[in-house]
Amino acid sequence: MRILLSNDDGCTAPGLLALRKRLAEQHDVTIVAPDRNRSGASNSLTILNPLRVHRHGDDVICVDGTPSDSVHLALNGLLDERPQMVISGINAGANLGDDTLYSGTVAAAMEGRWLGFPAIAISNVSIAPKHWETSAEVAAILVERLGREALPKDTILNVNVPDLPFDELKGFEVCRLGHRHRAESVTRTADPRGRTIYWINAAGPGADAGPGTDFHAIDNGRVAITPLLVDLTRHSALESLSTWVRGL
Amino acid sequence: MRILLSNDDGCTAPGLLALRKRLAEQHDVTIVAPDRNRSGASNSLTILNPLRVHRHGDDVICVDGTPSDSVHLALNGLLDERPQMVISGINAGANLGDDTLYSGTVAAAMEGRWLGFPAIAISNVSIAPKHWETSAEVAAILVERLGREALPKDTILNVNVPDLPFDELKGFEVCRLGHRHRAESVTRTADPRGRTIYWINAAGPGADAGPGTDFHAIDNGRVAITPLLVDLTRHSALESLSTWVRGL
Amino acid sequence: MRILLSNDDGCTAPGLLALRKRLAEQHDVTIVAPDRNRSGASNSLTILNPLRVHRHGDDVICVDGTPSDSVHLALNGLLDERPQMVISGINAGANLGDDTLYSGTVAAAMEGRWLGFPAIAISNVSIAPKHWETSAEVAAILVERLGREALPKDTILNVNVPDLPFDELKGFEVCRLGHRHRAESVTRTADPRGRTIYWINAAGPGADAGPGTDFHAIDNGRVAITPLLVDLTRHSALESLSTWVRGL
Amino acid sequence: MRILLSNDDGCTAPGLLALRKRLAEQHDVTIVAPDRNRSGASNSLTILNPLRVHRHGDDVICVDGTPSDSVHLALNGLLDERPQMVISGINAGANLGDDTLYSGTVAAAMEGRWLGFPAIAISNVSIAPKHWETSAEVAAILVERLGREALPKDTILNVNVPDLPFDELKGFEVCRLGHRHRAESVTRTADPRGRTIYWINAAGPGADAGPGTDFHAIDNGRVAITPLLVDLTRHSALESLSTWVRGL
Repeated sequence: MRILLSNDDGCTAPGLLALRKRLAEQHDVTIVAPDRNRSGASNSLTILNPLRVHRHGDDVICVDGTPSDSVHLALNGLLDERPQMVISGINAGANLGDDTLYSGTVAAAMEGRWLGFPAIAISNVSIAPKHWETSAEVAAILVERLGREALPKDTILNVNVPDLPFDELKGFEVCRLGHRHRAESVTRTADPRGRTIYWINAAGPGADAGPGTDFHAIDNGRVAITPLLVDLTRHSALESLSTWVRGL
Repeated sequence: MRILLSNDDGCTAPGLLALRKRLAEQHDVTIVAPDRNRSGASNSLTILNPLRVHRHGDDVICVDGTPSDSVHLALNGLLDERPQMVISGINAGANLGDDTLYSGTVAAAMEGRWLGFPAIAISNVSIAPKHWETSAEVAAILVERLGREALPKDTILNVNVPDLPFDELKGFEVCRLGHRHRAESVTRTADPRGRTIYWINAAGPGADAGPGTDFHAIDNGRVAITPLLVDLTRHSALESLSTWVRGL
Repeated sequence: MRILLSNDDGCTAPGLLALRKRLAEQHDVTIVAPDRNRSGASNSLTILNPLRVHRHGDDVICVDGTPSDSVHLALNGLLDERPQMVISGINAGANLGDDTLYSGTVAAAMEGRWLGFPAIAISNVSIAPKHWETSAEVAAILVERLGREALPKDTILNVNVPDLPFDELKGFEVCRLGHRHRAESVTRTADPRGRTIYWINAAGPGADAGPGTDFHAIDNGRVAITPLLVDLTRHSALESLSTWVRGL
Repeated sequence: MRILLSNDDGCTAPGLLALRKRLAEQHDVTIVAPDRNRSGASNSLTILNPLRVHRHGDDVICVDGTPSDSVHLALNGLLDERPQMVISGINAGANLGDDTLYSGTVAAAMEGRWLGFPAIAISNVSIAPKHWETSAEVAAILVERLGREALPKDTILNVNVPDLPFDELKGFEVCRLGHRHRAESVTRTADPRGRTIYWINAAGPGADAGPGTDFHAIDNGRVAITPLLVDLTRHSALESLSTWVRGL
């Protein structure tokens, strides 16, 4: 399969290289990814400035833009041959629950919707992973399975993997996104010149994290697989909202 | 009502000021918004650097961050009194269909989920609007209606308004997001020093744009109102995906 | 006189507006300046991305670039009529001694070399100035004097003004740049996610700061005026270096 | 000798790696350099945000800041052992005449003033160099000569090297900076969304480029060596300016 790899940790990040190493055993793999850490980039696109690319070694293309820029560029003119699927990751750190809204890893996968195969975002839930090879193996298994039995091609899978040796995984679980508690208040402090600055704090712990959620799967040592939408319409609200609007 | 206004066009953008002018007639309005144009920012959060704010005149707070940063900061420590709702806009340009994935305007509204009232993103569909006051009036009407009859507080409304005088509007329509054609291929060109650069092109025209979509409402002179999700789980796929995963 | 004003604190900074207010009494004044705080920008030029401008009110042009970009743009195509001189400031904070190497205020003035009149960089030495009008009056006096008695047009004057009421100034002194002690070591700390970050500290206090230096003039309540070079050649070393090179 | 290498083309640029390769034969070499291309950065310092570093391989430290940031960080807390000299380069492209004001390559060298040995900025005058090894050999020769016969330690040497095989060089010449013609007017154009943008053009050709200048040395196939100042005071103007100021 012709697979495009991207991420939001940057084109030389160890998670990306671990993913490439494993998938290149069976597939034709190309990397197009941001030239630096772009965590938190969400689906942002660079529209006010142009993009530049440089090659890093033989088959890594680094882009001075976001994860979405990188995949957009790869699919819309940069590569001679269009890939069949996009895999984004392996992220260093979880993309569970509300994280998916802000995640550049998930965003890169979303740009790969409408290709021939589902797009996959894959994250190791530890911020300092020890077992990249486990997540890489999970990715390889999912790709292999897709070759045997298709899923709808506009599917996006958000996959989180425990930071464990592969044979200690407790299986795969399909689950919905949970929700986190709100982040702590911003940290107000001062720079060395005495000017006020604010830091956005890390996301809160799982709040809606019971059975059936991605948080719960991870807490139980399982690979969490969540299918994602790219159509943000809340279809279930269309009718009641129509009634409400009639009152305008 | 205590309303927080934000946007992605920047804290001195005319659409934001038109919105403030109209809403301040009846409400307690504060602006916390990016200090510059951040179109295309999506839900990106600034996590590698701290944020700074400066005041512009009496009641405008400008943040050197994204739309999501601005609202996050406003709700998590910057403001003494928590607002009851967030309204983001008025954007110069449509946020229809897939635009919502990339839109900083929509993202700013999303950060206002879980407050006491629904969050609203409002856009004038022209990139060079002449009738800001029409969109501002639409916002005022929606807020007034919410005071009389509540909607679930986690609701997010994506509102697009034709660039017409108010009395030429053909009404309000609740609709789903349509879809655009893909953007044209990136434009490959050179900078003045001869180095290759790439520009991401504007989004394509409406593709899935028939009756029931936001594109269609706008094409027919109506205000398009679409309820949005923040839970990206594709619930309808959970079952079939579980079957598929059993094959792993 | 047609005067171009710029700075490195941003196009709406109070020091810039104070300067404009005073000079506009007698001169034809235009502002082209960075759209945000660019302190420490030195002579940096934006060459990898294009620049954009927006107007803020009637006669302020804001550029999404550096001080040097702003003046370069103003003199090379943006303005219909070329100004006769550039004045940069009023900076909030001293530009004494080694500061000049890093200063965006001084850099903006440097871009105005080769116009019809000397370029002037003007700074209030307090980081929280109370007496903008004093520095503005100093600027007005220098411009008036230039109209009566010329200086070589490629002259660049670096002017620092005590933060005092005008009638408490102890006169004007022409002086050389002194030198500062080195900055303290960088501050090593962690961001809220536990990752290591480093802050560059404020410049050290005056080291070579005796009589004849700009530090000394300021310490004694005088306006410090230092003529600057833009040719970095150390002419005095050419001969001895030639001898040394013969040994290669 | 303990040598710190930096540049403005980024920590993986071929010119930097060529320099390291040659100097590491005889010296203890460490690289601390920007993590991306920072051409045109001049002496800019990052003071509004913190800096982060990451290691690339064994002995390369990449900084998400400017050339000046990188060297400042290296000398003020990052490295356990202070280097004895700084060499910046090999830049891809000339740093002749006025280029030195804007050059990040020269700025990185300037930050190394006051160490035990002169600082050196070294540039290959071609924007697409073929003979990195020639410039690297020139650097090695200069360092070796400094070991045998000292120069004042606050000396900064700006070295430009023709892009030729080493044995085709026509010798070394100590010279002053020449001057360039002004750049062409900025290029006014539009982005793909129809918004006006401006590009700063490449620097003009040599204007003051006769015998004795760095331009002339290069045009004649010689290595151009120019001693630079970091004290910007125009000492020759102090007296006449004092007379002028008395008229205030």
